[in-house]
Amino acid sequence: MEKNIDVLQNWLKDQGAEVAFLTDPENIAYFSGYHSEPHERVLGLAVFPESEPFLFTPALEVEDLRGGDWTHPAYGYNDTENPFTIIADEIKKRVANPTKFAIEKKHMSVDRFEQLSGLFSGCSFIPIEHKIEQVRLIKTEAELKILKEAALLADYAVQVGVDEIAEGKTEAEIVAKIEYEMKKKGVTAMSFDTMVLTGKNGALPHGTPGETKIKKGDLVLFDLGVVHKGYCSDITRTVAFGDISDEQKKIYDTVLEAQVSAVEKVKAGVKASEIDLTARNIIREAGYGDYFPHRLGHGLGASVHEFPSITETNNMELQENMVFTIEPGIYVPGVAGVRIEDDLVVTKDGVQVLTEFPKTLQVIK
Amino acid sequence: MEKNIDVLQNWLKDQGAEVAFLTDPENIAYFSGYHSEPHERVLGLAVFPESEPFLFTPALEVEDLRGGDWTHPAYGYNDTENPFTIIADEIKKRVANPTKFAIEKKHMSVDRFEQLSGLFSGCSFIPIEHKIEQVRLIKTEAELKILKEAALLADYAVQVGVDEIAEGKTEAEIVAKIEYEMKKKGVTAMSFDTMVLTGKNGALPHGTPGETKIKKGDLVLFDLGVVHKGYCSDITRTVAFGDISDEQKKIYDTVLEAQVSAVEKVKAGVKASEIDLTARNIIREAGYGDYFPHRLGHGLGASVHEFPSITETNNMELQENMVFTIEPGIYVPGVAGVRIEDDLVVTKDGVQVLTEFPKTLQVIK
Repeated sequence: MEKNIDVLQNWLKDQGAEVAFLTDPENIAYFSGYHSEPHERVLGLAVFPESEPFLFTPALEVEDLRGGDWTHPAYGYNDTENPFTIIADEIKKRVANPTKFAIEKKHMSVDRFEQLSGLFSGCSFIPIEHKIEQVRLIKTEAELKILKEAALLADYAVQVGVDEIAEGKTEAEIVAKIEYEMKKKGVTAMSFDTMVLTGKNGALPHGTPGETKIKKGDLVLFDLGVVHKGYCSDITRTVAFGDISDEQKKIYDTVLEAQVSAVEKVKAGVKASEIDLTARNIIREAGYGDYFPHRLGHGLGASVHEFPSITETNNMELQENMVFTIEPGIYVPGVAGVRIEDDLVVTKDGVQVLTEFPKTLQVIK
Repeated sequence: MEKNIDVLQNWLKDQGAEVAFLTDPENIAYFSGYHSEPHERVLGLAVFPESEPFLFTPALEVEDLRGGDWTHPAYGYNDTENPFTIIADEIKKRVANPTKFAIEKKHMSVDRFEQLSGLFSGCSFIPIEHKIEQVRLIKTEAELKILKEAALLADYAVQVGVDEIAEGKTEAEIVAKIEYEMKKKGVTAMSFDTMVLTGKNGALPHGTPGETKIKKGDLVLFDLGVVHKGYCSDITRTVAFGDISDEQKKIYDTVLEAQVSAVEKVKAGVKASEIDLTARNIIREAGYGDYFPHRLGHGLGASVHEFPSITETNNMELQENMVFTIEPGIYVPGVAGVRIEDDLVVTKDGVQVLTEFPKTLQVIK
């Protein structure tokens, strides 16, 4: 949706770099408005300090691209052509001998880098992702509006899942129902494979839903999100089916306290690490420190995992209009897996929580 | 499913390389049996000519891994640790000073390569993907059995979609129904986003299903596949809803003739390019050469796009038990988009077609 390529153009000028060639489909979508998944083919966006940018895409996508709102040149290639030869030719028409070339080092493969750099001998290659991360880190009002809509769709998806809970239903059946209802609502993609985990599976932080059947006395964990107008949501809720044990309750209450306390701590100027440690210390003091093996949260936007990363060692100060998740969890094998996750926006004085599904323990009878 | 790490070990010996570090989740699954999607985290499999291999995975996955059938060491890392320091330490415990290090250059990012190579100064890095592609290229009987099952599930999915066709239904609604029915059948993932395209969308080779409504006189294109026991299927069928125009019929007949002729040409010893050209020449002779902008097919296995690539310039000779798709298409904007795709296995004397959904034009009334 954003097309602030000029920010990259200015950055190239500052760096004394003559060209940037982006290859990450998400970044390309962010700066060009063109969404495409090239799989093993090459998709790229070339940006120059002065010249017009161009898109480069498999030939079979060019027709699709023309239907969009990209107004600059676009070049295609067929499966039998060498894409990097064409890319290098087009770049050299604009800059005969670049000396400093910016690429996404976290995205480009060693193989492609060897091909590209072989066509620009004597050129140095610098990473551009830090600049891109910095641009994407602070959301605009338009982005925040879409992220709120995406969060509400995630709330709805959890509700669909909770309504499906019944003795003997499998995790996979509930996943199918959730995704079916979301597709009917016009959601074309989930942010990631929808997770519905129960019984033993619930104690795996990244388990895979399968044929495990839900039964009374189990916790059921939902972790899901939708892609809406190019932006992601990501919510986790854990609910009880019937009566659960005292230890399961204690674990739930600990996660909830950790989550709520961390959310309350958020505002512009606070360090990411303080947010993580607020939750982590509560979990440690309750004796579950070893059962919380992941960071507290992650940035959210066009990507379901972006910056800022909310860890106990990231001392980055939060700024207004950063968006991230807060999702403490405790996973005790054989006992319980509980995670509670919200999406939120940093505001000047505090926080706006985007996801609204209730966090107090929901007991399904 | 396959765990023939010894093939890699022997290859390392032949190359005089002391270690390989794989990072592609599909290759890791192929050689270790461990399926995991690490997102932006690091997942790796280290292989040595003599020493025992090890897996390296985010700490939160280690519990999951222990439930599987990996019997060698596995090391985890937390979000606050530098994974490459741990990886390098573990490698150096086994080989103090490697001089030749194999990596997947098509998978590893420049950023990770800079981190890894910085910890092994003076070491040369060689690509291992060609060897891996070669191993994965020829399927075992066990793999073929699973691929057949995956193909039959794809047939069923097309049938579900065809049964849903009705005036006014949207592409997205039909996608939702297909995926719902597949999930109910225990399919946990589709090979790629299910495509149901009609009207104008059908003439985009890689369109996105949306709110376009199906109406009488339209062609409806289904392109989909399932992941079954770690292996992919991929089928395309185009059907008519009501009466279609003579030109649409001509396009369909041309694609069908091209597809059937190419399939009939397949047997061990024939070049991939001959298969592509068989179909391509039929389409060219019918005057639609410019409207078939992609290769004829791609290999299929643990990945939905692997080797062999069926293009007009790939002179690789087909061998027994290679598996790939044959999928010619003609896309004339404003007129029709037709593609017909089967999955097939090369046999000594010919071909075994895995997908069975009828290819003669199905007219839905």
